Amino acid sequence: MKIAVLGTGMVGETIASKLVSLGHEVKMGSRSANNEKAAAWVKKAGPKASQGTFAEASSFGEILFNCTSGSGSIEALEAAGRQNLRGKILVDIANPLEFTKGMPPTLFVSNNDSLGERIQRAFPELKVVKTLNTINASVMVEPGRLPGAHAVFVSGNDVEAKGQVKQILEGWFGWKEIIDLGDITTSRGTESYLLLWLRLWGALGTPEFNIHIVKKG
Amino acid sequence: MKIAVLGTGMVGETIASKLVSLGHEVKMGSRSANNEKAAAWVKKAGPKASQGTFAEASSFGEILFNCTSGSGSIEALEAAGRQNLRGKILVDIANPLEFTKGMPPTLFVSNNDSLGERIQRAFPELKVVKTLNTINASVMVEPGRLPGAHAVFVSGNDVEAKGQVKQILEGWFGWKEIIDLGDITTSRGTESYLLLWLRLWGALGTPEFNIHIVKKG
Repeated sequence: MKIAVLGTGMVGETIASKLVSLGHEVKMGSRSANNEKAAAWVKKAGPKASQGTFAEASSFGEILFNCTSGSGSIEALEAAGRQNLRGKILVDIANPLEFTKGMPPTLFVSNNDSLGERIQRAFPELKVVKTLNTINASVMVEPGRLPGAHAVFVSGNDVEAKGQVKQILEGWFGWKEIIDLGDITTSRGTESYLLLWLRLWGALGTPEFNIHIVKKG
Repeated sequence: MKIAVLGTGMVGETIASKLVSLGHEVKMGSRSANNEKAAAWVKKAGPKASQGTFAEASSFGEILFNCTSGSGSIEALEAAGRQNLRGKILVDIANPLEFTKGMPPTLFVSNNDSLGERIQRAFPELKVVKTLNTINASVMVEPGRLPGAHAVFVSGNDVEAKGQVKQILEGWFGWKEIIDLGDITTSRGTESYLLLWLRLWGALGTPEFNIHIVKKG
């Protein structure tokens, strides 16, 4: 499959490398066609890997992964061009983290709105599925790094798109506990959970953790 | 031990009944000395149970449980009277839920502040320990209702007070997975998690669930 990974950070590189290792053709998109981090990744990842602008990557990809920083997501998708987004699934992993007001970061949108919703509203031609945003990059593509069962959530308005993303999570990445929270407004839940996630990172001393949902009987 | 439970709702009644069943003397506090819900509880809970105003309950209790609605917590503690709060631990179970803007509720404080912090700032004579606010009332006092391990968090500035609350959680209520997140600012994490909790309730169809923290090896 031809896949676009938007963003050259830790999450983008981890997702892109995993997808290449599964045999997919991956184009990593960034602001400029010759981004250095993307070039370094392409060199490392081999012949199935390529790089380009947000527009080139989005045109290339049959499905798109949003691994940009939350503060840059809308701008990146505008740069991608609506004609390159039409009808495609956007797996939205970004979080609306605000790093300019001290540590730990806060959220620049929360409570009665979310980044997932903002993206879906701004780009109705996309099928936005929010997922994987509650987990450290290393665990996203290899849930078996942690012992036992633990959860990943999906939020989105398009039921069929969520079904495809669930297949990716399960079949490609190995997720077993996949919880469909509902429509894209449920992104508020997983994005706000980041505020607990950040404190748990501090308390546990590692970002390599996750939550398992324990339910009665 | 003499204990004040502030609030007559589901959480207050559940906590108060559990404490009485453990042999403690519990005074349920509310706005008026003859609150009907408190009277019904006293009748049911027996000779160790009593009721009174917020001030009477706080004067009576060696330790206080804040089970008021989040929107009424500051007012309730003002009514309690500072002389009745001085040096005492407040186990703060309240959440800043805003029910006036449609369902599911939002939070009236979040992200860069929390109800726990607001209470601690407004009442420096109290040792505020935020805990149990991430769990349904029935599970708070009987974690064994759910299978396997699952977590409760504590947040507070006073290390000794947190130690005492951990003993209550473990020894009285039966909690095994108790995670100290840090100072009272970490209440932002657990209060914001409520936005995920509410969506999980919707997805799972029951409020009787909790999260277990899964950490790398």
